[in-house]
Amino acid sequence: MILTDSLLDFFLETRKHSEDICIPLEIEDYVVQPIVDVSPPKWHLGHTTWFFEEFILKPHAKNYVLFDEDFSFVFNSYYETVGKRVVRSDRGNLSRPSVKKVYAYRKYVTDNIKQFFNNTQGEELNSLLEIGIHHEKQHQELLLTDIKYILGNNPLLPVYSDSFEDHPAESHSQDWITIEEGIYEIGHKTNDFCYDNELGRHKVFLHTYEISNKLVTNGEYIEFIKTGGYQRFDIWHAEGWDWVNQNHVTSPLYWHNIDGEWHHYTSRGLQKVKKEEPLTHVSYFEAFAYAQWKGYRLPTEFEWEVAQAFFPWGKRWEWTESAYLPYPNYQKADGALGEYNGKFMVNQKVLRGGSVATPVKHTRHTYRNFFHPQLRWQFTGLRLAK
Amino acid sequence: MILTDSLLDFFLETRKHSEDICIPLEIEDYVVQPIVDVSPPKWHLGHTTWFFEEFILKPHAKNYVLFDEDFSFVFNSYYETVGKRVVRSDRGNLSRPSVKKVYAYRKYVTDNIKQFFNNTQGEELNSLLEIGIHHEKQHQELLLTDIKYILGNNPLLPVYSDSFEDHPAESHSQDWITIEEGIYEIGHKTNDFCYDNELGRHKVFLHTYEISNKLVTNGEYIEFIKTGGYQRFDIWHAEGWDWVNQNHVTSPLYWHNIDGEWHHYTSRGLQKVKKEEPLTHVSYFEAFAYAQWKGYRLPTEFEWEVAQAFFPWGKRWEWTESAYLPYPNYQKADGALGEYNGKFMVNQKVLRGGSVATPVKHTRHTYRNFFHPQLRWQFTGLRLAK
Amino acid sequence: MILTDSLLDFFLETRKHSEDICIPLEIEDYVVQPIVDVSPPKWHLGHTTWFFEEFILKPHAKNYVLFDEDFSFVFNSYYETVGKRVVRSDRGNLSRPSVKKVYAYRKYVTDNIKQFFNNTQGEELNSLLEIGIHHEKQHQELLLTDIKYILGNNPLLPVYSDSFEDHPAESHSQDWITIEEGIYEIGHKTNDFCYDNELGRHKVFLHTYEISNKLVTNGEYIEFIKTGGYQRFDIWHAEGWDWVNQNHVTSPLYWHNIDGEWHHYTSRGLQKVKKEEPLTHVSYFEAFAYAQWKGYRLPTEFEWEVAQAFFPWGKRWEWTESAYLPYPNYQKADGALGEYNGKFMVNQKVLRGGSVATPVKHTRHTYRNFFHPQLRWQFTGLRLAK
Amino acid sequence: MILTDSLLDFFLETRKHSEDICIPLEIEDYVVQPIVDVSPPKWHLGHTTWFFEEFILKPHAKNYVLFDEDFSFVFNSYYETVGKRVVRSDRGNLSRPSVKKVYAYRKYVTDNIKQFFNNTQGEELNSLLEIGIHHEKQHQELLLTDIKYILGNNPLLPVYSDSFEDHPAESHSQDWITIEEGIYEIGHKTNDFCYDNELGRHKVFLHTYEISNKLVTNGEYIEFIKTGGYQRFDIWHAEGWDWVNQNHVTSPLYWHNIDGEWHHYTSRGLQKVKKEEPLTHVSYFEAFAYAQWKGYRLPTEFEWEVAQAFFPWGKRWEWTESAYLPYPNYQKADGALGEYNGKFMVNQKVLRGGSVATPVKHTRHTYRNFFHPQLRWQFTGLRLAK
Repeated sequence: MILTDSLLDFFLETRKHSEDICIPLEIEDYVVQPIVDVSPPKWHLGHTTWFFEEFILKPHAKNYVLFDEDFSFVFNSYYETVGKRVVRSDRGNLSRPSVKKVYAYRKYVTDNIKQFFNNTQGEELNSLLEIGIHHEKQHQELLLTDIKYILGNNPLLPVYSDSFEDHPAESHSQDWITIEEGIYEIGHKTNDFCYDNELGRHKVFLHTYEISNKLVTNGEYIEFIKTGGYQRFDIWHAEGWDWVNQNHVTSPLYWHNIDGEWHHYTSRGLQKVKKEEPLTHVSYFEAFAYAQWKGYRLPTEFEWEVAQAFFPWGKRWEWTESAYLPYPNYQKADGALGEYNGKFMVNQKVLRGGSVATPVKHTRHTYRNFFHPQLRWQFTGLRLAK
Repeated sequence: MILTDSLLDFFLETRKHSEDICIPLEIEDYVVQPIVDVSPPKWHLGHTTWFFEEFILKPHAKNYVLFDEDFSFVFNSYYETVGKRVVRSDRGNLSRPSVKKVYAYRKYVTDNIKQFFNNTQGEELNSLLEIGIHHEKQHQELLLTDIKYILGNNPLLPVYSDSFEDHPAESHSQDWITIEEGIYEIGHKTNDFCYDNELGRHKVFLHTYEISNKLVTNGEYIEFIKTGGYQRFDIWHAEGWDWVNQNHVTSPLYWHNIDGEWHHYTSRGLQKVKKEEPLTHVSYFEAFAYAQWKGYRLPTEFEWEVAQAFFPWGKRWEWTESAYLPYPNYQKADGALGEYNGKFMVNQKVLRGGSVATPVKHTRHTYRNFFHPQLRWQFTGLRLAK
Repeated sequence: MILTDSLLDFFLETRKHSEDICIPLEIEDYVVQPIVDVSPPKWHLGHTTWFFEEFILKPHAKNYVLFDEDFSFVFNSYYETVGKRVVRSDRGNLSRPSVKKVYAYRKYVTDNIKQFFNNTQGEELNSLLEIGIHHEKQHQELLLTDIKYILGNNPLLPVYSDSFEDHPAESHSQDWITIEEGIYEIGHKTNDFCYDNELGRHKVFLHTYEISNKLVTNGEYIEFIKTGGYQRFDIWHAEGWDWVNQNHVTSPLYWHNIDGEWHHYTSRGLQKVKKEEPLTHVSYFEAFAYAQWKGYRLPTEFEWEVAQAFFPWGKRWEWTESAYLPYPNYQKADGALGEYNGKFMVNQKVLRGGSVATPVKHTRHTYRNFFHPQLRWQFTGLRLAK
Repeated sequence: MILTDSLLDFFLETRKHSEDICIPLEIEDYVVQPIVDVSPPKWHLGHTTWFFEEFILKPHAKNYVLFDEDFSFVFNSYYETVGKRVVRSDRGNLSRPSVKKVYAYRKYVTDNIKQFFNNTQGEELNSLLEIGIHHEKQHQELLLTDIKYILGNNPLLPVYSDSFEDHPAESHSQDWITIEEGIYEIGHKTNDFCYDNELGRHKVFLHTYEISNKLVTNGEYIEFIKTGGYQRFDIWHAEGWDWVNQNHVTSPLYWHNIDGEWHHYTSRGLQKVKKEEPLTHVSYFEAFAYAQWKGYRLPTEFEWEVAQAFFPWGKRWEWTESAYLPYPNYQKADGALGEYNGKFMVNQKVLRGGSVATPVKHTRHTYRNFFHPQLRWQFTGLRLAK
C-alpha cells in the first residue's frame, strides 16, 4: 500500500502535468471538438477534476460544498450511475464554463483533496485517489492526441510545441524473436495499481511463434502505399475495405502528398515523413492489411505480453489481433467505477504498449488499451508476428 | 449618390458596431457552432472583413498586401466564384485564427479601406463599399441571434446583456386594417441602397383583404399550446407535422415549462414569459399552424408591403405565406455578387419587417428576408390576415 | 351535375383502365419499391380501391362488410384522419396481400359500388364517387411512371410495352407567343370536376411576357450538357448544385452514354435519344439551370394558364417557376378529403399541363400538379418564357 | 475422399431441398427485402446456382454456355474477385429476373453440373462441388430465417407452414457440467468437409469451468423482462444499451405483448409464448445482459467445443463470448473462395451449435457461425456458463 504522503505528491504532480500540457494553447483551442472522438481540452481538465469531486469529496468529505451544481451535468463522461450528462457530440458546443472558470474549479478541487487527505487517511480512500490519478493520466494522453487532432485539422496547421517529439526513431535492426510453445501466465500480479481489466491472472497456451523486435516504419509503409495497398481489396477485411472507400483513405492520418513527396503534420508543424521513424496514426484495418500484404500477421495480446521483455516498446500503441474481452474470472468493480472498462468489451481491438503521449508511470506490460478498429488519432502503430 | 465622406463614416460606424455587439462575450463564446445554421461570432467578424478585402482591396487597391493568404479559405461563406472554402458545418471546428488575430485582421482591413477611399473615388467603388456595409449589417443581426443561440443552449444559461431588450411589448389593441382590391406597385423605387431581390418594381393585383395591426402575442400562443395545437395534425403542413414529431417540438424555441409555468431564455437570462409580448422564435410551420387554428391565415409578402404603412413594425421578422421567388424582370448582379440572393430562391419563405436584432438603417418596407420553413433562431413572429 | 348512369360507366371504365395498365407486368413487378417516391403497383391497385371503400361504402352503404379489416392499415396513404398506416418507405417490404388477393379486393369493391349506386342516388354521393374516380386516374399516371422506374432501374432493362409511346415529337417550329400586360382571371370556373386547389378563381396582374410555343427538345438539352451545363455552378440554385454533386447527376434520368452516344430507357426498352423529341425526366433544378444557361426563364403558373390556349400541351408535365401555394380564398375540404392538397403547400413547385402518362379526361388547363424540386421520375419537361 | 456418385446424389438432394423450402411461398414472397440483412428468397435460389456456374462450369466445363450474361451481376453476393455486383441493399428492388426464370436457371445449371460430373472426375472438382453444396446448405438456413422475417414483419402475419417446428422444448432439467482445467485441442480434425475457419487445429488452455446442460428458456427470459432487464443500464454493454434505446427494444424479435400476455410470431403464425421452450431471436447484447443479470456469463467458443459432447445441442445457434478471429496458422483459400470467411473476422461474435433451420449434415461441433452482436433474425439462443 502506498503511503498517503507520497500519493499526495503523485496527485499534485499529476494535476500539474495536465495543465503543463495545455501551456502552448490559445484559449480558443480549449473549446472545439472537430470529431466526436475528440473532446475539447477544457472538457478533459474539467472532467478529471469532477472525477475527484464526484467519487471522493462528495461522498466522503464532510461539509464539502460543490464548486458548481451544474458541473456534474457538464463534466460527467459516461457514468450512467451518476445521472444525466451532456451528450458526447455536444461537448464542442459549450463555450461556458470558460477556461478561466475551469482552472478555478481545478484549483478548488485540488485544494480540497489536499486538505481532506491531510486530515483523513484510509486504505479505501487511498485506493480511490489512486484510481483518480490514473484516470487523469489516461486523460493526459487523450489531451495530447486531441490537441494534435484539433491543430492538425486546422487549415493553418499551427505548431503545438517544438519540444514535443512525436517521431522518435528505433535505431536497431529488425530481427525475429522466437517464443517456444507452452503455458504462460497472463495478467497483472503485483500489488501496484492496475485496472480491473488486467486482473484475473490466468494461464494461456501459446503455440511457438515469432515476433518482430521492431515496429513497422514509415519507409516500409510507403512501399505498401506505392504498390497499391489501398487499392487491393483482397488484403482488407470487408469492413475495412468499406471504410477505405467511404472515407477515401489513401494514407495514414495527417499525411499529405505534396508534389509527390510525403509530408505529415506533427506537433512541430508540417514536416517531411522520415522513412526510419516508426509508422503511426493507422487504424487496425490498415495495420491488418499491411500485415497481410507483407505475408505476416499481427500478434495476439497474449503473444505480445509474453514476448515484451525481449524488445523495446512504449513509442506506439500497438494494434493486436485480439478482441477486447474479459479475462477468465473478470470481476467488474462495484458502483459507478464498474462502468470503467467492462461495458466497452465488444467491437473493440486491444492495443498494447504505450506511446510518446503516455505520461510517465502510466503504462505497464499488462496494460490493455482498446479502440474501435477504424480509429487512428492515437499514436497507434504495429509490430509483425508470424 | 452618397458622398464618399459620409459613406466612410457609415463604414466606420458599422465596423465599430459589430465589435460592440461582442463586448459582453468571453473568448470561448466566439468559437462554437452548436448547429449548422449558427456561425461562430469570430467567423462573422472575419467574414465581413474578408468581404471588403476580397471585393474591394484585392481587385482595386494597387499594392495591397493580403493580411493572410489562408483567410480566403477560412472566411469565404458560399461564393463559389471565389474559390474553395471551409465547409459550413466545420466552422465551429476551427480554433485558429484566434480571436485576437481576427481583430487584428479587422483593424488592418478597416485601415486599408479608409486609406484607399481617402485617395480614390468613384461611383462603382462607392457602390461596392455600400454593399459591403449592408452585408456587414446583415451579419450583425446574425451575430446577435447566433450569440443568443450559443448562450441559450448552454446548460448554464448565461446572461448576454442586461441592456438588450428582446421582448418589447406592443401596447395598442388589436384591430383589422382593410385594404381595397386593386393594382399595387411592389418593390424598391428610390435611389437608396437595396438588394437586387427588391428590384424589378412591378404591379400586382390584390383582392380586398384585412390584416392585423398587431403581432400575435405570447398569451395568444399559450392558448394554442394549451388547446393541443402541437397535437392536431389537421392544422399543420405534412412536412410541418413530420418536423414537430421528429424533433418533439412542443413550444417555441427557448421556452421551458417549469412547474407548469412558461419561462424562456432571453438575452437577460431565463425569465417568465409575459403574455402581452409579441411571440418570437417560431418556425413558419408553427406560424402557419397557429393561423389555421385561429381560423385566419398569414399575409402574402405583397399584402404586407402594401399595408405596412398602417401598422407599426420592426420588432419581429414576420413570416409570410409567400415563397421566396424572383420578381418579374429580376436581374442578378454580375460575378460573385450575383451569388448574393438569386441562388437561394427555392424552398424558402419570405419574411418581412425587421427585428429587435436588426441594426439601424438596415431594413426598409421593401426588404425581403428569407429562411427555410423550419428555422426559428431568428426573432421571427407573425401577423394574421384574412 | 353528372347523371349517375354515365358516372357509373366512367367509374367502371376507370377501374378497368388501371388493370389494363398492369397487363404487361409479371407478378414480381407489382411488389417492389426501389425508391421511397415509387409505390409498388399492387399498392396503387389496392389504395385506389380502399379509397372507395373507406369514403363511400364504409360510411354510407348499410350492411357493407369490409373485405379485410387489415387493409385499411395496408392501403391508407397519408390520411391521418383515418388512422394508422404502413409507413411509406415500407410499402415495398410487403409481399402480402398477394396480387391475386388485391384483384379480388378490387372486384369486391367495384361490385359493391355498382350495386350501391344502382340503389342509391344523391348529389353528395355522386360527388364522392367522382372524386374517387379522379383519385384513381391520378394514380394511373403514377402507376405508369412507377412501373417505368421499376423496370428502368432493373439491370436487365426489360421492355414494358411496344405500344406505349413515351416520346412523341412536336413537329412545329419554335416561336414566341406574346401576351400583353393586364388583369387576368385564374382558376377553375365551370361546373366540371376539379380539385380544391384550383378553386378560388381570382384576378392576377401580368406584365407583358413571351412564352414559347414548343417544349425544349432533347437536342437542345444535349447542347446544354456538351457545353458543361452540369459543371457551371453559376446557373444553378445552391440547393440544385448540392443535389447535382451529391448525386453525381450528369444527365436526365434514364439516360446512358454508350460509347459517346446518348441512349435512354423508354417503355420500349433501351433506345437512342432522338434530338427532335421533347426532353423529359428532368428535375426543376435542371429545368431552371437550363433556362438560365439559355438566357431565358421558366414561366409562372399564371403565365402558363393565360397563354395555354395558344400552344399545344399535354405531352409533358411542365415545371413552372411558381411555388405551390393556396389561391386567395382557398378553402380546404372537410374531414379526410381536406388532406388531399392543402397540407402539401410548402417546398413544392407547380407543374402545369399533363403528360403521355396522364389518362384521358384527367387534366385541364387549370390543373395544378406539384412535386419537390429534385424529383424527375414523372414525365416532366419544360417550356421557356422571357 | 467422397465418391463422385454419392456426391452427385448429395448435390441433387441439396438442390431439391432449397426448392422444397419455398413450396409454401407465394410468388410475391420471393421478391422482398424488408431489411438489408434479409435477402429475397429468389436471390438465394439464384445466388447458390450462380456459385456452381461461376466456380465450376465457367472455368472447367468446356463449351459451357452461360444461362444469362447479366446474372453474374445480379447474383454475385460479395466476391470482389469476380467483378461488379448489385449492392446488397438493392436486392429487394429487383423484380426481374422473374421467379420462373430463376427456376429455369436452377434447372439449367443443375443439369449441366450433373452432365459434367458424369463425364469428368477429379479430386479438385469434387472438392469444389462439395463446397458448393455446403454453400447452398448454408443459404438454406438463411432462406428459412429470411422467409420468417418477411412473413413475420408483414402486418397480416401469414402462416409459413404447419409442419415446421421453430420451438421444440428441451425436456430435461437444468444442471451444470464441470470441465477440469487443462490443455484441449480445438478445431476440425477428420477428413470430412469443413470450412477454412475451422482449420488450424490447435491447443488451448482452459481453466476449470461449468456450463449448463440446457438452453435458457422463454420462461426464464420473461423473468428478466419482468424485473426490468431492459431498463437496467448496468447489465448491458455501452453499445448494447444504445441499441436498446435507439431501437426501443423491450423483448426478443417477433414477440408481441397482447393484453399483458406474451405472444410471438412463429412459422405457424402468431402463438402464445410457451415458458418451457428455449428462448430464441435474441441479439448477443441481450444474451450478454441476461447472463449478467443472472450472475453468470456466456461460454467462450472453446469452452463450448470442449464440453459439447455432454449436452444436447442443435436447436439454437448459441451466442458465445468469443469474438470471431482466425485460429493460429489460419490459411485462407486462394482466389475468390478465400473471400468466404477471413474477411469477416472483425466486429463479429461466434455462435456455436446449429438450429431448427439448419439443414441435415450441415453443422458439426467445430462449426463456427458468426454475426454482428445486434442481429437476431436467426434462431439464436444462449446457454450459461460460470
